Amino acid sequence: MDNSATTPVDRRVVEAMMPYLTEKFGNPSSVHFYGQEARAAVDRARREVAALINARPNEIVLLSGGTEANNDTVLITVMLANNEIGTVQPIAEIGTLVRELRAGGRKYLWLHTDGVQALGRMPVNVETLGCDLLSMSAHKLHAPQGVGALYVRRSVRLAPQNIGGHQERERRGGTEAVSMIVAFGTAAALAREELDARIAHMRALRARFEAGVTERISDVIFNGDTERRLPHISNVSFRFIEGEGLLINLDMQGVAVSTGSACSSGSLEPSPVIRALGRGDELARGSIRFSIGKDTTDEDIDYVLEVLPRAVENLRRLSPLYQQAIAERACTAV
Amino acid sequence: MDNSATTPVDRRVVEAMMPYLTEKFGNPSSVHFYGQEARAAVDRARREVAALINARPNEIVLLSGGTEANNDTVLITVMLANNEIGTVQPIAEIGTLVRELRAGGRKYLWLHTDGVQALGRMPVNVETLGCDLLSMSAHKLHAPQGVGALYVRRSVRLAPQNIGGHQERERRGGTEAVSMIVAFGTAAALAREELDARIAHMRALRARFEAGVTERISDVIFNGDTERRLPHISNVSFRFIEGEGLLINLDMQGVAVSTGSACSSGSLEPSPVIRALGRGDELARGSIRFSIGKDTTDEDIDYVLEVLPRAVENLRRLSPLYQQAIAERACTAV
Repeated sequence: MDNSATTPVDRRVVEAMMPYLTEKFGNPSSVHFYGQEARAAVDRARREVAALINARPNEIVLLSGGTEANNDTVLITVMLANNEIGTVQPIAEIGTLVRELRAGGRKYLWLHTDGVQALGRMPVNVETLGCDLLSMSAHKLHAPQGVGALYVRRSVRLAPQNIGGHQERERRGGTEAVSMIVAFGTAAALAREELDARIAHMRALRARFEAGVTERISDVIFNGDTERRLPHISNVSFRFIEGEGLLINLDMQGVAVSTGSACSSGSLEPSPVIRALGRGDELARGSIRFSIGKDTTDEDIDYVLEVLPRAVENLRRLSPLYQQAIAERACTAV
Repeated sequence: MDNSATTPVDRRVVEAMMPYLTEKFGNPSSVHFYGQEARAAVDRARREVAALINARPNEIVLLSGGTEANNDTVLITVMLANNEIGTVQPIAEIGTLVRELRAGGRKYLWLHTDGVQALGRMPVNVETLGCDLLSMSAHKLHAPQGVGALYVRRSVRLAPQNIGGHQERERRGGTEAVSMIVAFGTAAALAREELDARIAHMRALRARFEAGVTERISDVIFNGDTERRLPHISNVSFRFIEGEGLLINLDMQGVAVSTGSACSSGSLEPSPVIRALGRGDELARGSIRFSIGKDTTDEDIDYVLEVLPRAVENLRRLSPLYQQAIAERACTAV
């Protein structure tokens, strides 16, 4: 239940990358046969990644992941979809505004969006969004960790962050991670092909999950917009408990979840995202992100619905605040 | 014969990384079991990489490769061993000088060295070298492309280039490329274990190669220091021909070589490295880098020694300069 942190690598993706980990080991910059074979593989993958977001292949800069892709100094940057609660931001509207400002003379105003959580979970079309830059990460798309890409609209000129060889049309020096790039390309092709089915599957599982939680656990609040939300994330605030305690309890029973983004785990600060929703520190501390993947099953959800209410109940039994609330409610009822 | 551009991935390395491409897919920043399993794997690999260069694990920053590792603004940077001709630079002497200057009050003077070509081909010990930063790339060490590391001496503070999560002790944001890092760690352990044997093997094969070339081909010059040279590189200038033509000719017969570094291939400029040796443009244009790997065999060398003299002879037959030289020599003899 932590597919937002990373996703299992698809078996088909591993199969596609294996030749590039064994006999096909060329450096794409080499002129000879081995080099050209690697170059062709990188170019095929680039086309698949471009097709996934309706971009041109030469607008794709392949790099080490979403974080590297986000490290471009740009003027306006908005997450396409939030990684904690899944809310989809109105990028297209901002895109229209940016284009208007640009037409009005602000030539170097660019819109960047972090598409890492959204990719493979909603249609992402750079023309519809009107963004100039878009960050992508393969490991949220059932490919391995360590590869990603930045979409750079053809009108945008970026100073490279990695200076070295002439790779990626001077936009990112360094020998290409061929096997990883092949994996990313395969994952992109699969995501495009299966997108509608994956969305329907994740949405149905999440509905089953949220209905079950509502039915079996009191004092819960679902965070994030109910409509404009990625289909795989359910962020729940459980009153009277600490999210960290619940996470550990669930982990011991084989259920992996997250309190905030994986990037900020280890931090004990309550999630700024949940606080920004006006929930207050207590609810922010008691929030858990459940994130479903394309390979999650009905049985997985049912197991969580069996384990979760018991874990919440056990933790609440230890909470003085909960005991007090129960007592107060009993008095009010009397 | 192009092991300087990249090396075949070791079968044992692929075996070590496979679990991290299949069932062990956690994000090392996640608190739960899957995350901690990935974290432990990254830490094991970090220890192996540190051991290879006699550093401490917390002095190793894992990143996407040698180029990213080189992108650190530093004051003094010298290649540990040149990637075109294999000459080993006197880093230890420069290190002593830098330390003296630092003791004299220049507190922020740091020595960086690019160890990408040297690693696994000579002993690399950061204490003996006295360097403060050292770049490493896994794909020159029989691990896949797309992973590397920067050694950062504990007294050095660097501003991170990738800003995002808190990974790599705030020195490099971004989800760790777990499977790749595991591969790198395994390759580092194997390189440490087998270093002496690999060096002896490559040196013997190179001697066989150079003796064969000297015997069978006239008008050749070996570039680079004969003593202080990496054991796997033989850079040869063939008079009267263009390196590019020879490369293509050899490629058609299944022999992969390089005219300069893979990073600058495609460029038609004669190698600045060979020119700096005082060889002149003609010899620089006619130079080829042959680079041997741990898996190269006697038979491979013999095949090259069979194919190469014929290729050189065919190209020279088409060269007016060569015809003229032959004629002149004939006259002198008369």
